Amino acid sequence: MQIAVCGPRECGDVEAGWAWEVGRLLAEAGATVLCGGGGGVMAAVAAGASAAGGLVIGVRPDSDRGAVCAGLSAVVFTDMGEARNAILIASADAVIVVGGSWGTLSELALARRRGVPVISLGGWRVLDADGNPVGGTTLAADPAEAVALAVREAAT
Amino acid sequence: MQIAVCGPRECGDVEAGWAWEVGRLLAEAGATVLCGGGGGVMAAVAAGASAAGGLVIGVRPDSDRGAVCAGLSAVVFTDMGEARNAILIASADAVIVVGGSWGTLSELALARRRGVPVISLGGWRVLDADGNPVGGTTLAADPAEAVALAVREAAT
Amino acid sequence: MQIAVCGPRECGDVEAGWAWEVGRLLAEAGATVLCGGGGGVMAAVAAGASAAGGLVIGVRPDSDRGAVCAGLSAVVFTDMGEARNAILIASADAVIVVGGSWGTLSELALARRRGVPVISLGGWRVLDADGNPVGGTTLAADPAEAVALAVREAAT
Amino acid sequence: MQIAVCGPRECGDVEAGWAWEVGRLLAEAGATVLCGGGGGVMAAVAAGASAAGGLVIGVRPDSDRGAVCAGLSAVVFTDMGEARNAILIASADAVIVVGGSWGTLSELALARRRGVPVISLGGWRVLDADGNPVGGTTLAADPAEAVALAVREAAT
Repeated sequence: MQIAVCGPRECGDVEAGWAWEVGRLLAEAGATVLCGGGGGVMAAVAAGASAAGGLVIGVRPDSDRGAVCAGLSAVVFTDMGEARNAILIASADAVIVVGGSWGTLSELALARRRGVPVISLGGWRVLDADGNPVGGTTLAADPAEAVALAVREAAT
Repeated sequence: MQIAVCGPRECGDVEAGWAWEVGRLLAEAGATVLCGGGGGVMAAVAAGASAAGGLVIGVRPDSDRGAVCAGLSAVVFTDMGEARNAILIASADAVIVVGGSWGTLSELALARRRGVPVISLGGWRVLDADGNPVGGTTLAADPAEAVALAVREAAT
Repeated sequence: MQIAVCGPRECGDVEAGWAWEVGRLLAEAGATVLCGGGGGVMAAVAAGASAAGGLVIGVRPDSDRGAVCAGLSAVVFTDMGEARNAILIASADAVIVVGGSWGTLSELALARRRGVPVISLGGWRVLDADGNPVGGTTLAADPAEAVALAVREAAT
Repeated sequence: MQIAVCGPRECGDVEAGWAWEVGRLLAEAGATVLCGGGGGVMAAVAAGASAAGGLVIGVRPDSDRGAVCAGLSAVVFTDMGEARNAILIASADAVIVVGGSWGTLSELALARRRGVPVISLGGWRVLDADGNPVGGTTLAADPAEAVALAVREAAT
């Protein structure tokens, strides 16, 4: 089971704490963690998962060996800029979004486009042109709920 | 000047009419039109632009010669699925979004991630986790306003 | 009909002359020319084709607006490094190789992998591990023969 | 240290044996193995490396969960066709080529284009237009030599 965790490369303490805990719980659940391999939420989830002995794969937008966060088991350097986001999503059985940014929203949207389940922990929300919520994303209250939902969705 | 027009591959008559008119007006303004080269909004904008003698480039997610809409001057077959969206955006000086879908939202998000101006004509809207609108997209009332805004933004 | 012309970004006068003539003849034959949109062979084929009023699409590895050669009708900025080569090939009905380089050889190889016809004008050659030539590429003696062969192959 | 092993998806017993042994020796040397995650040489190297307890990452051209070989620690589904080859190469500190095919040659060429060291075990060879060998690839006599050379090159 491979679960991608997506979030901004600059984030606050709350999101970093959530991401670390999400990583830890995914590793304990035996899931392989996929992330962008950079800063912010990406670094926090890698740290949490690796602290629990989990397998963590970073999928980078560039080929810069010096821009990679700690805690990764292996790194795929796509050298493809934001097209990397599509690869992360295509590789995931479920996606957990932690916090919001434009890059993160593109990953949420690509996941819904492919039918990959998305669990959101403090992520951005989407309205149609009439102001009605666009469904398809499950909101979680905390990391434990996010991981439980993602693992359940990924298994089905 | 290259302007991408993005929108769902299945759309209603209102959006198709808007897209056709956006294509016509972009061609008359001398802009090269980039689109996904498929159905719905993509086909309508290609039809409108080609009817006005404009240059229209389709950027496809597959390599299927039979899935291409009419009206394209040339077609780039990326064979890369939704990563195609990142290429469309990286190639555009401005983006006009017509209508909403998950794929379209990924393009809007990638454009804002890169700092490419986005003009929205009936597109989806974005709220942060607290329910506040996330800025960065300009709403247009009709095709004429959308094209005028996009041309102005692309030129700066 | 879309024909890609591939060759090194730094080339000598002979290859530049061949590429210019290939571009001119492709435009006169009514083919759309695809190229990498950079220097050397790419710039020469774009110049030749545009001088003859042809449609020329540049497919770039980066998103640098200042690195683009003259003579292009439109430019697709993939921002994907050498993965751009796969897009050029997937978009072509036939490929003309002018001269040799590692990047050019990757395009020749990707074309043969996909079954896209390749015409070589001064390109590198390939031997198997036993030293026997690996077929699949047609050698041309001059630009006129290269274009005639490519147009014929692309039409079948 | 990440080392990519490239080779045809259909191969004979000799190449499969070489690839298995290359995988085993890379794992014993502590290198992470990258491969295409499919049949032939890809499956053999994954089997050899995983038998020795190594970390093996498959980088796939599609998103087909059923087309993946055994022995992979994690799989990145690029859904990008042959553009996957560029990602494999961009992620590698050195490349070992086992046997020859057009796809494999594209990887060899992309590696040389980027300056990534290439060790060849029964791979295709390249001549310029005058019939002279084009350098840049080191020939190995057996798996032990290939791995020793690749590990040395990757470390420098």
